[in-house]
Amino acid sequence: MGDELKNVDDVLREHIPPEKLKEVQRVLYGSSFSKLTLPAEAVKLADERKFELAGYGMQAVPEQLRPARVVRVGAVQNKIVLPTSAPIAEQVAALHARIAEIVEVAAMCGVNIICFQETWTMPFAFCTREKQPWCEFSESAEDGPTITFCQELAKKYNMVIISPILERDAAHGDIIANTAVVISNTGTVMGKSRKNHIPRVGDFNESTYYMEGNTGHRVFQTQFGRIAINICFGRHHPLNWMMYGINGAEIVFNPSATVGALSEPMWSIEARNAAIANSYFSVAINRVGTESFESEFTSGDGKKAHHDFGHFYGSSYLAAPDGSRTPGLSRVDDGLLVTEVDLNLCRQVKDKWCFRMTARLDMYAESLAYAIQDGYQPPVVKET
Amino acid sequence: MGDELKNVDDVLREHIPPEKLKEVQRVLYGSSFSKLTLPAEAVKLADERKFELAGYGMQAVPEQLRPARVVRVGAVQNKIVLPTSAPIAEQVAALHARIAEIVEVAAMCGVNIICFQETWTMPFAFCTREKQPWCEFSESAEDGPTITFCQELAKKYNMVIISPILERDAAHGDIIANTAVVISNTGTVMGKSRKNHIPRVGDFNESTYYMEGNTGHRVFQTQFGRIAINICFGRHHPLNWMMYGINGAEIVFNPSATVGALSEPMWSIEARNAAIANSYFSVAINRVGTESFESEFTSGDGKKAHHDFGHFYGSSYLAAPDGSRTPGLSRVDDGLLVTEVDLNLCRQVKDKWCFRMTARLDMYAESLAYAIQDGYQPPVVKET
Repeated sequence: MGDELKNVDDVLREHIPPEKLKEVQRVLYGSSFSKLTLPAEAVKLADERKFELAGYGMQAVPEQLRPARVVRVGAVQNKIVLPTSAPIAEQVAALHARIAEIVEVAAMCGVNIICFQETWTMPFAFCTREKQPWCEFSESAEDGPTITFCQELAKKYNMVIISPILERDAAHGDIIANTAVVISNTGTVMGKSRKNHIPRVGDFNESTYYMEGNTGHRVFQTQFGRIAINICFGRHHPLNWMMYGINGAEIVFNPSATVGALSEPMWSIEARNAAIANSYFSVAINRVGTESFESEFTSGDGKKAHHDFGHFYGSSYLAAPDGSRTPGLSRVDDGLLVTEVDLNLCRQVKDKWCFRMTARLDMYAESLAYAIQDGYQPPVVKET
Repeated sequence: MGDELKNVDDVLREHIPPEKLKEVQRVLYGSSFSKLTLPAEAVKLADERKFELAGYGMQAVPEQLRPARVVRVGAVQNKIVLPTSAPIAEQVAALHARIAEIVEVAAMCGVNIICFQETWTMPFAFCTREKQPWCEFSESAEDGPTITFCQELAKKYNMVIISPILERDAAHGDIIANTAVVISNTGTVMGKSRKNHIPRVGDFNESTYYMEGNTGHRVFQTQFGRIAINICFGRHHPLNWMMYGINGAEIVFNPSATVGALSEPMWSIEARNAAIANSYFSVAINRVGTESFESEFTSGDGKKAHHDFGHFYGSSYLAAPDGSRTPGLSRVDDGLLVTEVDLNLCRQVKDKWCFRMTARLDMYAESLAYAIQDGYQPPVVKET
């Protein structure tokens, strides 16, 4: 995709004079972030391995009674490695190898928690509506080969790993689910969190493959903070983001797969709004590249059948509870975003803005319960 | 404020080469909007009267069974006219005169619905925490002088007017409220909608003056579509935005007053996220300028007492349900934003994205009712 804009932030930096750039960046991105210096060896390896490596720091103020809770958060975006027609085991192995070399660099950068993109072991084949061979990419969220692979990485690097996979749940009738597995830095599988909201956009309907998740809004208490995962389409649903916040999440990851024509003007808005509204950090992760499939498919938009879903525009970023965000990773290249955050910022923002105390949740619990009833009559004022 | 950046969008247009600018704008603002040509006479008058006049159009596709529902929406941002120490009646009269000359231009531009900024008849004096003379700016939402003034404008120009004022409710014990009054294009007072969420940020506490609104999330069925008003701090609360959507709003106005150091990185995010999440248009309106007060006040941040709250950065904009938005009005000047929208876009986006059908409101009504209970134990997974 040689005609794809590589990165909006780069364009701004390239063309806007420095004296204006600072103010433009403050308005667009907030002022809390700074550049993070990463080890030269890591920078060199990332360059050799051909992925972007970006580092930022988000500031919080020192407190008297709580020590800073500094955590380095990693977000990975990547293209698939082999063609979608390659044997499944080879496609998976190639992606395992690619992620292993990115995670090694993340470890050198001191990353404590890392998250990969949605269904990272496979192409995003749900646009094809063919069931095979794609269902074969599914695996156990307890002891599938990808989980075992992640456990080894987690132990080796003392890193919490969030691994979003296509899950096969044999114990519950062989159902398939879109699931993120959380593996602690000791290598223990802490549990899983399923995608709560399943897209039906045009004729792109993921419920062909898996249904709305039944794991609610659980939060994982890791050694590096309380985390949760809001998979892909859930980012369009403010209540989904909210429940993770109510349950105590300090960082909510949003592993995604989304293409430009569909969603790009929404991408920079939704995860960042969630960080603001819920006083936590959010991490929006999108895959990159264009994936071509052997069989043609349509998109329910009156256009001719085609072989790819569109360009996955990457642009992964982290947003902070004070409204600041990092610049995005590239729109076209593999990348690792390393952000150092102080989790104390969550409560600091709560103490400053009082969004939770002013949220009137009791009123909304009542309004919502009332509004979902059949026969609900909204309060509409008409001209008399 | 000569050192204030005038407009981020202008900086982008000035410095980024045209071939890149288009793509940068698409990523940042979406692709649905175009420039709207406004009458030369209106442009001339705006120039003479020293306010920015900007016009945009938001596209929707033609349908077979519904005619287009094209509406022109006006958003006004303005500085106060007289010093905050001038006699109250003179301050109000000067603001009435200023608004009258802006509304006249809006009428020439074919505006059907217009909204002014929060408590537009007064300086935003709530930062002072002094009760007088500010409480004297309050007036009846049924027949106060500002309502009468707006009724005349509404009738004269066949325009729906949303007039956010400081309300004095004599019938309910002389309480004060932060209220938007909706006046139909026939000049009828349709009703009022009060601010649902009251800020307490640092020691800036508006509940010194008025309490959380008791008018719920009513929607007004005007001749130009169903509208609602989410006043200022309510934009930080996704549930507030959501309930207006559930009740059928097609355009939700957010008349505000907010300053840069506090909220600017959030400004472009929240109203736009609401437009996306709820498949309606949102209109974010902020006052401009710096207002100086005779008595000093503090901001609860350890800094010295001062005479102004900070710079109100304007930047009013309209966001569409497909994630597109207009560029913002100036950060420093008075302005009128005219946007032509086709309300059919709301349902078109609903049909495409299905956010409402995938929202699982029943699940959240239950989760929320459960979560607000004393003794609620969030589902937190711990390492075993």
